[in-house]
Amino acid sequence: MRERTMTKTAAIIGGGVIGGGWAARFLLNGWDVRVFDPDPEAERKISEVLDNARRSLPGLGNVALPAGGGLSFHATIEEAVAGASWVQESVPERLELKQRVYGELAQHVAAEAVIGSSTSGFKPSELQEGCSNAGQIVVAHPFNPVYLMPLAELVTTGENSAATIAQAKEVISAIGMYPLHLKKEIDAHVADRFLEAVWREALWLVKDGIATTEEIDNAIRYGFGIRWAQMGLFDTYRVAGGEAGMKHFMAQFGPCLTSPWTKLMDVPEFTDELVDLIAGQSDAQSGHMSIREMERIRDDNLVGMMRALGANDWGAGALQNSHDKSLEASAGLVDSIDEIADLSQPVLTQSRIVPLDWTDYNGHMTESRYLDAFAQSTDRLMIMIGCDAEYIANGGSYFTAETHIRHIDECHAGHPIQVKTRVIMGAGKKMHLWHEMYEGERLLATGEHMLLHVDLATRRSAPPAPHIEANLVKLAEAHATLTAPDGLGRAIGAPR
Amino acid sequence: MRERTMTKTAAIIGGGVIGGGWAARFLLNGWDVRVFDPDPEAERKISEVLDNARRSLPGLGNVALPAGGGLSFHATIEEAVAGASWVQESVPERLELKQRVYGELAQHVAAEAVIGSSTSGFKPSELQEGCSNAGQIVVAHPFNPVYLMPLAELVTTGENSAATIAQAKEVISAIGMYPLHLKKEIDAHVADRFLEAVWREALWLVKDGIATTEEIDNAIRYGFGIRWAQMGLFDTYRVAGGEAGMKHFMAQFGPCLTSPWTKLMDVPEFTDELVDLIAGQSDAQSGHMSIREMERIRDDNLVGMMRALGANDWGAGALQNSHDKSLEASAGLVDSIDEIADLSQPVLTQSRIVPLDWTDYNGHMTESRYLDAFAQSTDRLMIMIGCDAEYIANGGSYFTAETHIRHIDECHAGHPIQVKTRVIMGAGKKMHLWHEMYEGERLLATGEHMLLHVDLATRRSAPPAPHIEANLVKLAEAHATLTAPDGLGRAIGAPR
Repeated sequence: MRERTMTKTAAIIGGGVIGGGWAARFLLNGWDVRVFDPDPEAERKISEVLDNARRSLPGLGNVALPAGGGLSFHATIEEAVAGASWVQESVPERLELKQRVYGELAQHVAAEAVIGSSTSGFKPSELQEGCSNAGQIVVAHPFNPVYLMPLAELVTTGENSAATIAQAKEVISAIGMYPLHLKKEIDAHVADRFLEAVWREALWLVKDGIATTEEIDNAIRYGFGIRWAQMGLFDTYRVAGGEAGMKHFMAQFGPCLTSPWTKLMDVPEFTDELVDLIAGQSDAQSGHMSIREMERIRDDNLVGMMRALGANDWGAGALQNSHDKSLEASAGLVDSIDEIADLSQPVLTQSRIVPLDWTDYNGHMTESRYLDAFAQSTDRLMIMIGCDAEYIANGGSYFTAETHIRHIDECHAGHPIQVKTRVIMGAGKKMHLWHEMYEGERLLATGEHMLLHVDLATRRSAPPAPHIEANLVKLAEAHATLTAPDGLGRAIGAPR
Repeated sequence: MRERTMTKTAAIIGGGVIGGGWAARFLLNGWDVRVFDPDPEAERKISEVLDNARRSLPGLGNVALPAGGGLSFHATIEEAVAGASWVQESVPERLELKQRVYGELAQHVAAEAVIGSSTSGFKPSELQEGCSNAGQIVVAHPFNPVYLMPLAELVTTGENSAATIAQAKEVISAIGMYPLHLKKEIDAHVADRFLEAVWREALWLVKDGIATTEEIDNAIRYGFGIRWAQMGLFDTYRVAGGEAGMKHFMAQFGPCLTSPWTKLMDVPEFTDELVDLIAGQSDAQSGHMSIREMERIRDDNLVGMMRALGANDWGAGALQNSHDKSLEASAGLVDSIDEIADLSQPVLTQSRIVPLDWTDYNGHMTESRYLDAFAQSTDRLMIMIGCDAEYIANGGSYFTAETHIRHIDECHAGHPIQVKTRVIMGAGKKMHLWHEMYEGERLLATGEHMLLHVDLATRRSAPPAPHIEANLVKLAEAHATLTAPDGLGRAIGAPR
């Protein structure tokens, strides 16, 4: 659709927690990243964000990311933006500072690049005002931690062309984020307006002694926070309203709008006492943990919850799944044995980074996740021979009857693993598979599996469709020329 | 501490979605539940909520709930409250109706019972006004779906004694919820004030054409909703503020309080046009799904996310873990082999309900979760012989070297499973285990595992501490008198 050609180079102007988060997103998705930030601490600060991102993002999905790009630091904006097709401005929230930066960007940024601003408060028209290249400037407002949170609010004006908007959406999606394109600009965009409303109400509640910061956090995280994480506000109420529908729900709760159920007609005064009260309560609540420790707990939780949503193909997890799908080709994964160049070799059935939620108290990938990985490899092999979702919906599938796993070496969260699969025997109802899991050249584990084709209606074994058996036989015959793998047919406790 | 004796009988006055949710919580946690609701549809409505609850709640944790209580429906309040130590009022939000109910309750409820109100808007003092038994009445405000969401806002007044408040907290905790006891009463308590603030802002955004209901839901569920689900508001900002601390964060963002970042000084007019606009957008967003379908998607997501938090022992997941701990004794699980009555029999190492997130596209428990269950049984056996968290922190643990699983029969989400474990051999560095998984008398799977004791510093095998080896030998000797299990030492593909 779009005719522009795009470099995979991003310039990051301003490299704090937000700029660093953008840098990490781009880098880990294979972009080259060029940073300008006059702060002498910028390199250290970005490397801290990058450490967190490297720890959590690559294992968020189920497919390996492309090879990481290069990171460089530059002394001037002019140098940083050279060759960039995306420029992300994340300097402090002062309009005159931002406009000064835009003035300099106007002189050096390539005409076909998009300039995104991380501003949480300003409207794009305010940023564009007086700029010769106003049409390049959009708001692309992310959420901390940028390397994990998928939301980016994309706010544009009439100055931005359809092509620029399309390019902005494409880039944001390419790095695994969700571009929420607002129909109109407004102060603080959408999400921060909610945050501001809740923040103001929370300040009142603390100030008036109704609840402490910890109690308020508990009210959120044991209650509506968990609901909102998956359905947001309106779908949550739609469900609560029941079959009578949204209109009925609103009729019931509309009148409350005039009740004194929030203090938000009013703004609390931001006195030193209020600041001390809140800072003191926050210290009592979480002062026993360092911020680094809390960041890691937060990221562990976000990864775990998003992966749980991914298992249901819902919300932020569904976004991640479609990002994964877009990465399969670069990871070498295919959907059919017809796409395999050399059938005589074991088939690549998995290429991923060990996710944070796959490790245990021994500090390594936990045993059941080896079987989880092998099962996912079996699933891909099934798809490759034609036993896909459609076939399963029509009533046929394979059930695992027996599994033998040998744990040969440890592996850790954040490390890349690949699974290569051989068909030992595939005939009639039986499918005998051999998976080998590697980190690079290092063999981590083997999985030997006997599966039976079943009729999902009777739950009994039954022959597969002819095209599936034919594909399986083709693979089994091709793999029969390989030497039998070490450990095949081994029983537990048998001598090596 | 408390001297009162308590029946495990709850009366539910008003049985809609909220009353039904309370009924399900009590029932599934082993209480008898007596319902009064004049609605002729009440029994059907409660049974629908119960179906959802039975599907999702028992598998939320990792330990089986006690045997369910009995459910009965009654024609009068007098009959419903007989023998109840907890009465939960969930009638419609009209003060005169609620006060009429309290008048009747005053005549029939036992003096030692607590009366909790599900009111989302009224203060406890408003409910207590003019009641002869004001001291029994508290607000216990839950969140939908009550059977999964842990939060219950407990709001009391000077009329309530310390003993009543303690009893209320005890009961709420006993059914797996979190009693958030507010320091002062306020209209709409705490959480709903936030919901109201966000709801008002959301109505403005839709009315002004900034975003649709779907875009607003995406802004929440791809962004701050996921953050809030685990840390709430203040801890999220504490982390965002970094090492400079909460005070620094507030200094930075305090001034925004006077910015026009929410419309909340103002209240949108609730016109027919606005209702139609929102209901229409909501239909376009989710009208392709029935409410029942959405309820199940929601519950799948909530269970998955809370279990992900549980794996990190954080937030709502940490609450669930401590609830699990309180259920271990009634489930027959112990922490030490010294607590086992008959050492000669296989050891009960797991008793749970298959969680919703353990199933796959074949509609049954997925293969890796068999190993997950067996691994948890191995963990419990390790604890029972002394290889507990403290021992592991001191540098010793067991690593699994080899696993053999036979899948003998299917099992499904919501069904109870138990694992019984034998020590086949335990000597020196080696621990050879045999797990059998049952649903009732039906054998579902066996797991044979060879583990090696390791030094966690060198990651090499090493002898365990003497007390661990001694316990292991004791079990192995006791189990040696049992007949060798069918399938022991079997290799894949070997004849049966």
